[in-house]
Amino acid sequence: MAHIKVDEGVPGIRSLVMFRPDTGQYLYELVQILLRGESTLSEAERELIAAYVSKRNDTMFCMMSHAAASRELYGNNKNIVDEVLNDMQQSHVSDKMKALLNIAGKVQVLGKEVKEEDIAAARQYGATDIEIHDTVLIAATFCMFNRYVDGLASLTPTDPKVYEEMGKRMANGYTMPPPSN
Amino acid sequence: MAHIKVDEGVPGIRSLVMFRPDTGQYLYELVQILLRGESTLSEAERELIAAYVSKRNDTMFCMMSHAAASRELYGNNKNIVDEVLNDMQQSHVSDKMKALLNIAGKVQVLGKEVKEEDIAAARQYGATDIEIHDTVLIAATFCMFNRYVDGLASLTPTDPKVYEEMGKRMANGYTMPPPSN
Repeated sequence: MAHIKVDEGVPGIRSLVMFRPDTGQYLYELVQILLRGESTLSEAERELIAAYVSKRNDTMFCMMSHAAASRELYGNNKNIVDEVLNDMQQSHVSDKMKALLNIAGKVQVLGKEVKEEDIAAARQYGATDIEIHDTVLIAATFCMFNRYVDGLASLTPTDPKVYEEMGKRMANGYTMPPPSN
Repeated sequence: MAHIKVDEGVPGIRSLVMFRPDTGQYLYELVQILLRGESTLSEAERELIAAYVSKRNDTMFCMMSHAAASRELYGNNKNIVDEVLNDMQQSHVSDKMKALLNIAGKVQVLGKEVKEEDIAAARQYGATDIEIHDTVLIAATFCMFNRYVDGLASLTPTDPKVYEEMGKRMANGYTMPPPSN
């Protein structure tokens, strides 16, 4: 059960933004622009960064749901998601994505872990300033979401099918649920 | 120097939201409602939670600036800020605030570190659901800001006077700076 009185049966962050829509609206707007806004990183790639960071923070709800969204968006290449979650360095993502995921992994530990050489490696494979910026902000944002969801012990479904359905909806974008009564 | 090309001389998160106002606007709106919106936690207390988490994340810029804002808002009781940053358990904040700061400290580590007994302790001293929610979200939000600021190596002034001035401005609220050219 969640640590505070939220709608029973509503999973993850959804129950929390329904409890406090005043703050929730900005969380949804932020994630919508970061993961669905115009970008030279594909939506599938950005969802993969979110899932990768959430796995490292051991937040099952965010990891499962954003992995599902990423698989949905990768389509025929969806296996890449599980490859990255199992062993990023051995996966078939591009060298640029490996360098960006490496930066995201450093951010997950602590901001200061990101070193000049991590940035240089990403640039070497063609990463731009805005791609580096967005990678850091996506990783930082999921360090927030993960702590919000787990810190209040919100409902985490265990059935993989629930996440598959969730991933399909998330692929279409993020919109605020109605506030709880 | 920052890892990406931001305005030289603009400190901390300000340079980053000027670089990417599309995402920055929601970060500012979020922090404005969390730290300045209507709440039974005082603005000084909420700034103190932000400074406390930032110190634990070793993010000098956020720690110094939010500590300064908290001192400004505590007025004659401003010594309490440094007491908490030096040794929270021995400080003169209320038992309720100690219980909430304890929760914030757990969130800083990882969401799952917040246990039933941490929540029960806060309730015992009168903390409400919304106060517990906001404490967790403020702590999670600063885990994001800290990583954003340090992950991109944004400018961190070292002169305490700079932060004193910043704290005075921040006490009046958070508004977006104009975008960089």
